[in-house]
Amino acid sequence: MPSDLNNLRVVLVAPRNPLNIGAAARAMSNFGCSHLRLVNPYKVAFREARSAVGAGKLLAAAREYPSVRDAVADCSLVIGTTAVRHRELQHPLRRLEIGARLIRRKLVSARVALLFGPEKTGLSNEDLSHCHWLMHIPTRPEHISMNLGQAVAVCLYELARDVKAQPERSTTQPAASAALDRISDSLLDALQISGYIKPKLTASAELKVRRMVRRLDLTAEDAETLLGMLRQIGWKLHSEGSEKA
Amino acid sequence: MPSDLNNLRVVLVAPRNPLNIGAAARAMSNFGCSHLRLVNPYKVAFREARSAVGAGKLLAAAREYPSVRDAVADCSLVIGTTAVRHRELQHPLRRLEIGARLIRRKLVSARVALLFGPEKTGLSNEDLSHCHWLMHIPTRPEHISMNLGQAVAVCLYELARDVKAQPERSTTQPAASAALDRISDSLLDALQISGYIKPKLTASAELKVRRMVRRLDLTAEDAETLLGMLRQIGWKLHSEGSEKA
Repeated sequence: MPSDLNNLRVVLVAPRNPLNIGAAARAMSNFGCSHLRLVNPYKVAFREARSAVGAGKLLAAAREYPSVRDAVADCSLVIGTTAVRHRELQHPLRRLEIGARLIRRKLVSARVALLFGPEKTGLSNEDLSHCHWLMHIPTRPEHISMNLGQAVAVCLYELARDVKAQPERSTTQPAASAALDRISDSLLDALQISGYIKPKLTASAELKVRRMVRRLDLTAEDAETLLGMLRQIGWKLHSEGSEKA
Repeated sequence: MPSDLNNLRVVLVAPRNPLNIGAAARAMSNFGCSHLRLVNPYKVAFREARSAVGAGKLLAAAREYPSVRDAVADCSLVIGTTAVRHRELQHPLRRLEIGARLIRRKLVSARVALLFGPEKTGLSNEDLSHCHWLMHIPTRPEHISMNLGQAVAVCLYELARDVKAQPERSTTQPAASAALDRISDSLLDALQISGYIKPKLTASAELKVRRMVRRLDLTAEDAETLLGMLRQIGWKLHSEGSEKA
């Protein structure tokens, strides 16, 4: 039987087509993954999808979020799916067969979010900055873009299919996405005060910092320590500034 | 890249929904399988599907047959897909993961037909009588019936995926120990100035920081970035202190 996808969160970012939302939900039901999250879905589409056959319960329980950041806050591993292969991606990119192995291991002990972007455009750079790494389905180079519902089905099949994957023995808890965001925020704050980031470049620096922090592969414990360090440094930077003023 | 599905014939038996025909064709195009055959398709559906995006050429080349017998006449291996598991099937039934291996081997030298039944009813006993064996996608027992377009996508993915896929060689260089030491030194410096580390505890803090920095698993590039950040923060902390003094 399919491996347990109870710790998986399928996150559809700004889906537009009710048929795709319904199809994603149906595939989730087929493969035993019951937690669907939607980031800013097109309202009409979400309403129409809810009346779709076969996955009504799953869609009724689906949760809506205003941002990717909120949707993945409680997840320790965040994976973005992309068809893109040659654009200058800032993340490690893995084939589904390889990526699924890593995800399966993580699922044994922690929540994993799997992100799918809007039908026309895919995930934005801002969306991707919340991801630890990216995954692509091995399609033909001449026709890389898959239908959203089919892409969800293929990814879940690969995750659920029976391989003799050995669960990763690990006693350490990985840091959740929300903790990584707090670290990124504190680091950005210190970088701004210290003049490392020019005011005009804040937006692109934010993405860079967020990606780098995700690459650190922090444990929950180290994340807490690092946050404490950064907050103390930030406090000192702020207090020096205000004393001077 | 996907293995060669040139010898595969996807056969849709009496499909009713143009969206499903279009979706099947799109998945075929994604995974490099170009030969679609339809047995008694619902005429209107086939006509509408032909105008579907993404797989027009494939649909234009699709061939129609009056019976399963005719559609598989030139194939050496004929596989029926089914969601059914407990009805008295007269054929060997294999999970997709297992069946796909056998199909891949046959494809090297002979034509293989993969049959999908009508949306509502699946393949009939008459249809199945043309099959060598049957295959099912490993879905949850509580929800075994997949959408046609998604079932085609999942089967073709399993056939096309690279079973010998090796984790890609990482192109990133890990940071050298000297770089990690420079990071530890800069971080310790910032922690001391900001009061995070009490002067008496410096020695044990040094070990803690050095161990944590090593757990970060930094690439050479990230290490350089992080060092630049810490040095700028340290510079600011020092300059604030001296301005005040």
